[in-house]
Amino acid sequence: MRAVDLILKKRDGGTLSREELDFLVQGYVRGEVPDYQMAAFLMAVYFRGMEPGEVADLTMAMVESGDRMDLGSIPGIKVDKHSTGGVGDKTTLVLAPLVAAAGVPVAKMSGRGLGHSGGTLDKLESIPGLTVDISPDRFLEQVRRIGVAVVGQSRRLVPADGKMYALRDVTGTVDSLPLIASSVMSKKIAAGADAIVLDVKTGSGAFMKDFDAALALARTMVDIGERAGRHTRALITNMDQPLGHAVGNALELREAVVTLAGGGPPDLRELCLVLGSHMLVLGGAARDLAEARSRLEELLVSGAALARLRAMVEAQGGDPRAVLPPTVQGQGGDPRAVPPPRPSAATAPAAPADGLLPVARCVHPVPARADGYVTRVDALLVGRAAMVLGAGRARKEDLIDPAVGIVLRRKVGDPVARGEPLAEVHYNDDDRLPAALELLEAAYRIEGQRPPVRPLIMALVTRDGVERYCA
Amino acid sequence: MRAVDLILKKRDGGTLSREELDFLVQGYVRGEVPDYQMAAFLMAVYFRGMEPGEVADLTMAMVESGDRMDLGSIPGIKVDKHSTGGVGDKTTLVLAPLVAAAGVPVAKMSGRGLGHSGGTLDKLESIPGLTVDISPDRFLEQVRRIGVAVVGQSRRLVPADGKMYALRDVTGTVDSLPLIASSVMSKKIAAGADAIVLDVKTGSGAFMKDFDAALALARTMVDIGERAGRHTRALITNMDQPLGHAVGNALELREAVVTLAGGGPPDLRELCLVLGSHMLVLGGAARDLAEARSRLEELLVSGAALARLRAMVEAQGGDPRAVLPPTVQGQGGDPRAVPPPRPSAATAPAAPADGLLPVARCVHPVPARADGYVTRVDALLVGRAAMVLGAGRARKEDLIDPAVGIVLRRKVGDPVARGEPLAEVHYNDDDRLPAALELLEAAYRIEGQRPPVRPLIMALVTRDGVERYCA
Repeated sequence: MRAVDLILKKRDGGTLSREELDFLVQGYVRGEVPDYQMAAFLMAVYFRGMEPGEVADLTMAMVESGDRMDLGSIPGIKVDKHSTGGVGDKTTLVLAPLVAAAGVPVAKMSGRGLGHSGGTLDKLESIPGLTVDISPDRFLEQVRRIGVAVVGQSRRLVPADGKMYALRDVTGTVDSLPLIASSVMSKKIAAGADAIVLDVKTGSGAFMKDFDAALALARTMVDIGERAGRHTRALITNMDQPLGHAVGNALELREAVVTLAGGGPPDLRELCLVLGSHMLVLGGAARDLAEARSRLEELLVSGAALARLRAMVEAQGGDPRAVLPPTVQGQGGDPRAVPPPRPSAATAPAAPADGLLPVARCVHPVPARADGYVTRVDALLVGRAAMVLGAGRARKEDLIDPAVGIVLRRKVGDPVARGEPLAEVHYNDDDRLPAALELLEAAYRIEGQRPPVRPLIMALVTRDGVERYCA
Repeated sequence: MRAVDLILKKRDGGTLSREELDFLVQGYVRGEVPDYQMAAFLMAVYFRGMEPGEVADLTMAMVESGDRMDLGSIPGIKVDKHSTGGVGDKTTLVLAPLVAAAGVPVAKMSGRGLGHSGGTLDKLESIPGLTVDISPDRFLEQVRRIGVAVVGQSRRLVPADGKMYALRDVTGTVDSLPLIASSVMSKKIAAGADAIVLDVKTGSGAFMKDFDAALALARTMVDIGERAGRHTRALITNMDQPLGHAVGNALELREAVVTLAGGGPPDLRELCLVLGSHMLVLGGAARDLAEARSRLEELLVSGAALARLRAMVEAQGGDPRAVLPPTVQGQGGDPRAVPPPRPSAATAPAAPADGLLPVARCVHPVPARADGYVTRVDALLVGRAAMVLGAGRARKEDLIDPAVGIVLRRKVGDPVARGEPLAEVHYNDDDRLPAALELLEAAYRIEGQRPPVRPLIMALVTRDGVERYCA
């Protein structure tokens, strides 16, 4: 077998066999297939796509390139969750302890943020002392003991993905459906869960800008998962505007805590309840979605969900006081945890730090320039504003500032009067403020008419088909 | 400027500027743009193509990557000729001395054969003592003195082409129109001639299997040449069956000598007269094609054309007795120079060597299996048969055997009786014979009806448009 013949086969629209994909992928990881041949192959895949069975074969070839987690020592049906990435998406911080509290073990390997979209690990690490670098043995032990762990992905899982992704990044082959789907699913399959719930974002802040592209990706990923013997479902959810109010690591962690305590922004809460319900059904902890949902709502109200996060933080070396319920936090805690809309016209010093979660030095409001309704809060621009402040990475090696970020005071559909704050910028570096403000100004649009709001949950994709919740 | 952005621009169907192409090409030659980015770019070009101005810009960026020959010290209009490669194509061996004898200087840099198609340099080197490795100064001096030189291309000309071609070869991006056109034309432009006549082959033995693809390539190359200020014309010619009778280096050289002496196979003679006429017109040595043709016919009959080859061979260190006219060669020379059809049923020893050109040890006939007409002599399969015998290279580093090859006794349209020889295999290595015979058996088809014959010269492409000589 020669790599050039496989490139030609794909270039000319052929379908590669599992054996041929193994030759390419294992050869690439071993250094026998050079970067330039893989680059040409990936570009040919970009143009030609892959058949459903073929992309599943590619995924399994990638899985075979490294170790697999064996979750067999954990009792019960293990359910994993993955989001394709968005702005202000802190659902894993809510879902992992919430679903674990309902009796479904969550052994989650997560990623770091890159570009405008944040990473769960970065958000968790704003908790003093908490580590996400945990050995496989300790990881398994923690899930057996408290039902939940969120850690960094082992480098021994799917080494092909890391090498291929780095190459795609510099060869213009990132946004290819089969390459995205195989990258995500190879990691999910290698991570060992029995079932997988996917949150595929669509909209300005998502990788997939339009619904149809998101639907195609969701279908492909569900198909890959089912072919690998994992029950897999995908929700397609809206990412035109950021999820919740907070964008930035410690700010998002606070919002997750509030949500776990039964409060939080309605969109974040709703998304967590819907994703969590599917996880409970797949995990065998509820007979149907309605039962699952009422179970989860109880756990939010009772404090059991937040208690599970606290247990997880403690197990991973973090200070559990950083995730106390907001009423307790309120006694000397951070009042911005549930930020009440408040008028603010000039830069104000940030609230005093509680000493547990990092807090930015200054807060600057972004006032509305007109009366009317917010008709757009562009998630991509808000994400970029947070990145400019230091909340995210432009490159993998960049350091992030956990304290900085954006708090949105108004979202799409909200009325606003001229001069009222649309958002607040939490910043440490004065030099970075102007660029962030400019991006936020551009992100917001105010018009005279209240806009129609696209539903948050747009569709459900299972192996049986697609259920659409919107036109 | 970043290479990945240029890859994305091309991937998404954009048109790159000269500046952007320079960044890629010069960066690649200098090692600043890595192989994997160039590979992804080339695959994107394969799928997206290039605009006419863009491919001309790519060509000029490639020309700029190295030196250019300055032919200014040679008086007159210098006319170059290029063939896209075929089987049995020895036109350069005929045309270069023929056109020079008509007063148009030919300073030709040529290539070696690869795959099933032969190379002019390999054919020339079957002459004892002859060298094609000549310094630029000696090359120019030779053209000034005798009007003609055929040498190997300097490595300092278009280094980008060598590096890009090697990469295309292993990344499945060889057969891309803009990449083929820019590769050919960058070398022609850097070689310094004032005018260029292209012979674009189409048919089973050609790179471009169908007429429309050949036409598109011809148009693109003529456009590039004209944009670079070189008068450029292309003929589209048939390569369904090999050109002439001989396929193999010394065998082809003998056939060229016979043709220069006024004989030779009709198709080879006709193609040389047509290409040569265009060269004379572009070179200002004839007012029109008719005048040019009668001039060339005189030079073949008078012996002046062959005398010019002899002068060239001598100037390049070769033994001029190797290219004596066939009547003189006949006195102890090689009788196969103009091979008369002769029945031959078994392997015969080759004719005695004349000591000047290499001769194969054995000759084996390929008899017809039926009565009828030859309706096909597949050029690709004949070329592969010659390659199997050692006449060509599967890889650049392979050594070739100048003596071996195929002599076609029957071509398309010829009647044949069962048992009569269709072709002869000239071979040195008994182990290679069976594979060559098998390929030749597959190359010939005999049917009951005389077939229609496709015209040899199919179309002329100039900057003014296309003149078709066939449907």
